[in-house]
Amino acid sequence: MDMIKKPVNGMKDILPREMKIRDYVTGLVKETYGGFGFQSIETPCVEHIENLCSKQGGENEKLIFKIMKRGDKLDIGNAKEENDLADSGLRYDLTVPLSRYYANHANELPTPFKALQMGSVWRAERPQKGRFRQFVQCDIDILGDPSYLAEIELILATTTLLGRLDFKDFTVRINDRRILKAMAMYAGFPEDKLDGIFITLDKMDKIGIDGVREELINAGFSASDTGKYLELFKNTGSDTEGLKSLKKALEDPAADEAADNLDMIMASVEATRDASFKIVFDPTLVRGMSYYTGTIFEISMDEFGSSVAGGGRYDDMIGRFTGQKTCACGFSIGFERIISILLDKDFRVPDPARKQVFLIEKGTGRDRICEIMKDAAELRKQGVKVLVAQMNKNKKFQKEQLVKEGYKEEDIKDYYNTEFKR
Amino acid sequence: MDMIKKPVNGMKDILPREMKIRDYVTGLVKETYGGFGFQSIETPCVEHIENLCSKQGGENEKLIFKIMKRGDKLDIGNAKEENDLADSGLRYDLTVPLSRYYANHANELPTPFKALQMGSVWRAERPQKGRFRQFVQCDIDILGDPSYLAEIELILATTTLLGRLDFKDFTVRINDRRILKAMAMYAGFPEDKLDGIFITLDKMDKIGIDGVREELINAGFSASDTGKYLELFKNTGSDTEGLKSLKKALEDPAADEAADNLDMIMASVEATRDASFKIVFDPTLVRGMSYYTGTIFEISMDEFGSSVAGGGRYDDMIGRFTGQKTCACGFSIGFERIISILLDKDFRVPDPARKQVFLIEKGTGRDRICEIMKDAAELRKQGVKVLVAQMNKNKKFQKEQLVKEGYKEEDIKDYYNTEFKR
Repeated sequence: MDMIKKPVNGMKDILPREMKIRDYVTGLVKETYGGFGFQSIETPCVEHIENLCSKQGGENEKLIFKIMKRGDKLDIGNAKEENDLADSGLRYDLTVPLSRYYANHANELPTPFKALQMGSVWRAERPQKGRFRQFVQCDIDILGDPSYLAEIELILATTTLLGRLDFKDFTVRINDRRILKAMAMYAGFPEDKLDGIFITLDKMDKIGIDGVREELINAGFSASDTGKYLELFKNTGSDTEGLKSLKKALEDPAADEAADNLDMIMASVEATRDASFKIVFDPTLVRGMSYYTGTIFEISMDEFGSSVAGGGRYDDMIGRFTGQKTCACGFSIGFERIISILLDKDFRVPDPARKQVFLIEKGTGRDRICEIMKDAAELRKQGVKVLVAQMNKNKKFQKEQLVKEGYKEEDIKDYYNTEFKR
Repeated sequence: MDMIKKPVNGMKDILPREMKIRDYVTGLVKETYGGFGFQSIETPCVEHIENLCSKQGGENEKLIFKIMKRGDKLDIGNAKEENDLADSGLRYDLTVPLSRYYANHANELPTPFKALQMGSVWRAERPQKGRFRQFVQCDIDILGDPSYLAEIELILATTTLLGRLDFKDFTVRINDRRILKAMAMYAGFPEDKLDGIFITLDKMDKIGIDGVREELINAGFSASDTGKYLELFKNTGSDTEGLKSLKKALEDPAADEAADNLDMIMASVEATRDASFKIVFDPTLVRGMSYYTGTIFEISMDEFGSSVAGGGRYDDMIGRFTGQKTCACGFSIGFERIISILLDKDFRVPDPARKQVFLIEKGTGRDRICEIMKDAAELRKQGVKVLVAQMNKNKKFQKEQLVKEGYKEEDIKDYYNTEFKR
């Protein structure tokens, strides 16, 4: 068979320049979240096919890279469908494996448990620019804390991280699934139609309030219900006052609790924040995944269009593994999105260490080499980065390449067999 | 379908305690190797099935986790054998993907190119204690440097890393495939039998010189050839003098060059080393993989039995992708081996940051929460790790758990709705 140079379709090789930024961001993530008491954990990239296909992954379940059974278990002749041949697959997110992990290890973990996961996930999506079939997700989750403290900590940790990455003027938008529901019920919409209504509502920032109105009426909802619904959004401000007036309008106990909760979260984050951003109540925020049960939140930046982080509370998911209800709340930053923004703005990783290059003439004798390597070791001990390399025939080109890589010309030193130059 | 709590057979969930050590070692690897000018790169975990099955992976090719074709490409009815169903698989090492990567990107990379790869690989081995089907490999490779500088840098980088991890009294053993071959030819063994002879020689440390003799004679080699062969090992010391006497005995130009090379490498490493170890010439060192073409090396520690790092020069492999010869030399530390040694000796990650816990009474009011979160933010800004959590009903048990996790009792603070205690 011929060997293939390109990576597998839809996946990518990462070059040193990007990798340097990825390593830097990874370090900052671990340090920042560590300061909030989050602890790193890891699950295997390979997950049981039963868990991946358990209806918690929504559309992602159609995009699984399935792994073939091995040995005697693989019975090609009698296979009728895919899952006769596969017993596992690559994880498409970090939330399903986290639920399994917590169900498996709860008695070895503290309560509440603050988990940090960074890891690759795979989705067999149609390859397109900027979207890859293997990508890194970066999730923080707090398991076993039913209180708003979880939301506050998640939002503060995430905004602190973005601030340390020099992101400015972003907006944390926050809502609650219970308010979403109460608003739709208030308008008189039938409960079994809510999912569809929310899909339309989610387009508010793209098609505007009139677009939403049109789409709802076209979907068969009455003009008066739709009008009552949209009036509510018009009259609701994005701050504490907005929450208050909404509570008065809805008169719904679940929405009341949710609104007080949001008020508490927003006030604490406002009082504490250490970066330039604002936090607003956004009753149009939907968040796609159906597993959310309470607070939902998202971070967006006008500058970059789409959101850079999203999350919410999902109190019912872990119970599906354990049979025992465990409340949970998580926030995921768009790691790949952040890397591509940093690459686009030509972000330079802070590189405090001094750097030197030792170019060594071919055929240099044993004693001389020992001397040079000792010098290099001494500098390295002092924290200087020293690149030792054989001098190429075309020394000028070699130096130009090194300067392109970030070495200063005066830090490139030529070592000849018997003498040292410059 | 029921959900499964355990991870996939042979793979493991990583708990916070182990993860802390893994993150620490990862950071140290990146920092130490970075100081030697190695640059991080990454390849996808999924690789073309053609590349994985190209006979460069030896026995590992039998252990591939194969990934099923998707969509219309998957034709179960007409499939006869595994590779009709699979178009890719999980990589079983980092060397095959590195060759593909270099073939694909050589013109975007410096010469020589010093690559650092840390990543998971997968092998469907029979599960057994301490061996997992997903594990991390950590490789450094220098591509495009034909000189001994590559070997010297690889060995110094690796030994410096081990020193910084507080490993002591280890031994770097070094040999050259050309010397291996010349010694066997000198004894009169037929060239087409060398692989088998080396497999026996490799057992020297287990079965001793008499065991090797017996096995060679049982394999059909003459007692006189075998005697001549083993005499050579007896008479060869593990230092410069040993190399000199061997050169005299063999009178083989390739072995001559190899011996001078080894001498240069050993002298430079001796002169430079910054950790407590020794470097010795070991003519019995074989290293399994058939792709090695020159120097081979391994690091062992009496204390831990098996080797903790291994590598060598493989000048022909990359040419198989590119059609153009590219010399290459690599060194791989046994990341999982090192982690398990550190876990066994109850290694504690240096944790310089101060730590505090704020336990907050349930139902604490909005203003009070804002105050407390501000205090936490202030401390975090000063580099203190602050864990904020809701106070559990059983506060005593909660504190015991926190102390177990490494927080000091005096750093755990109780915050009530209106007052602060302790």
